[in-house]
Amino acid sequence: MKKMQEKILAEGKILPGGVLKVGSFLNQQIDTKFMKEIGQEIAELFKDDEVSKILTIESSGIPIAVSAGFAMEVPVVYAKKNRSSNISGDVYCTSVHSFTHGNNNNVLVGKEFISSDERILIVDDFLAHGSALTGLIDIVEQAGATVVGCVAAIEKGFQLGGDKLRNDGYRIESLAIIEEMTDSEIIFREDQN
Amino acid sequence: MKKMQEKILAEGKILPGGVLKVGSFLNQQIDTKFMKEIGQEIAELFKDDEVSKILTIESSGIPIAVSAGFAMEVPVVYAKKNRSSNISGDVYCTSVHSFTHGNNNNVLVGKEFISSDERILIVDDFLAHGSALTGLIDIVEQAGATVVGCVAAIEKGFQLGGDKLRNDGYRIESLAIIEEMTDSEIIFREDQN
Repeated sequence: MKKMQEKILAEGKILPGGVLKVGSFLNQQIDTKFMKEIGQEIAELFKDDEVSKILTIESSGIPIAVSAGFAMEVPVVYAKKNRSSNISGDVYCTSVHSFTHGNNNNVLVGKEFISSDERILIVDDFLAHGSALTGLIDIVEQAGATVVGCVAAIEKGFQLGGDKLRNDGYRIESLAIIEEMTDSEIIFREDQN
Repeated sequence: MKKMQEKILAEGKILPGGVLKVGSFLNQQIDTKFMKEIGQEIAELFKDDEVSKILTIESSGIPIAVSAGFAMEVPVVYAKKNRSSNISGDVYCTSVHSFTHGNNNNVLVGKEFISSDERILIVDDFLAHGSALTGLIDIVEQAGATVVGCVAAIEKGFQLGGDKLRNDGYRIESLAIIEEMTDSEIIFREDQN
């Protein structure tokens, strides 16, 4: 998706420590026109895969998952971090390490929301070390459901989580893959489809 | 919105302690077809109000805000709980008490995302004591912007937060107002428009 690359170059900001700030359009403010296009792009990528449901994780994956859910006309489920009093009954649970916050979160999905006959598309905003996607894949597999594939809006290719998951046999689609990022420059992986 | 009342009666579950569980369509799993209708309903309610941006709070407000943002063709901003390393620079901050979790959260919005000339519609999933909406109103007013109004998907009328805000002069629209809730029955406020 060339458009994601262009959007990152136009509006992304590089902060010290290799943080790419995309708050103006993706994960603090949402550019709804652009977000709608992202959803349609995801729907196009997986149009032949009989996706029955989209799974994401709060919070910044939700807008992308909702937009894709609108385009694909399937329900969206989002995993919650920590147990909340309004999740009742049995949950699927996995532990996800956050490199951004330097902690581990229990990530939970009510068992009633994923059944074994489902074909799940996993969606998130960033793919770096791959810990969030790995956790979500674990939840889908605990449910005995099928992981159709994973979509990240932005992959940090140099942090290798995406390539590890690809080597494990999962279909991983990223709308932009950053191959290299300096304090002043962003270089995209050019062989991406 | 009669449809919201019908959806609550069809799919909502009452848990001990007065918790209404609507995870099957609103805040764990999202029924995207229904969520699209909610967004269109919100757009209709505020079609003459020149809304320039929608403000919500993570996580469960996001799907509703995104759907309304799609329908109204305006950007969405979501307030974050706690400081995250990918919010840089100056932020508007307020403290919001969570009755669900029994704690206080700092709620933050980057200053760059609300300017004083904006007309902001505030959106959330639940309105009970009104603490989240009050916090979001505070943020908009810190920015010197205009609060056009607030929308809650579901208001618990008996917890009085909505009526307090109405008495303070804010326009508060709720898609369903629960007047009374027992362990087995939900009674809606019937005089709602």
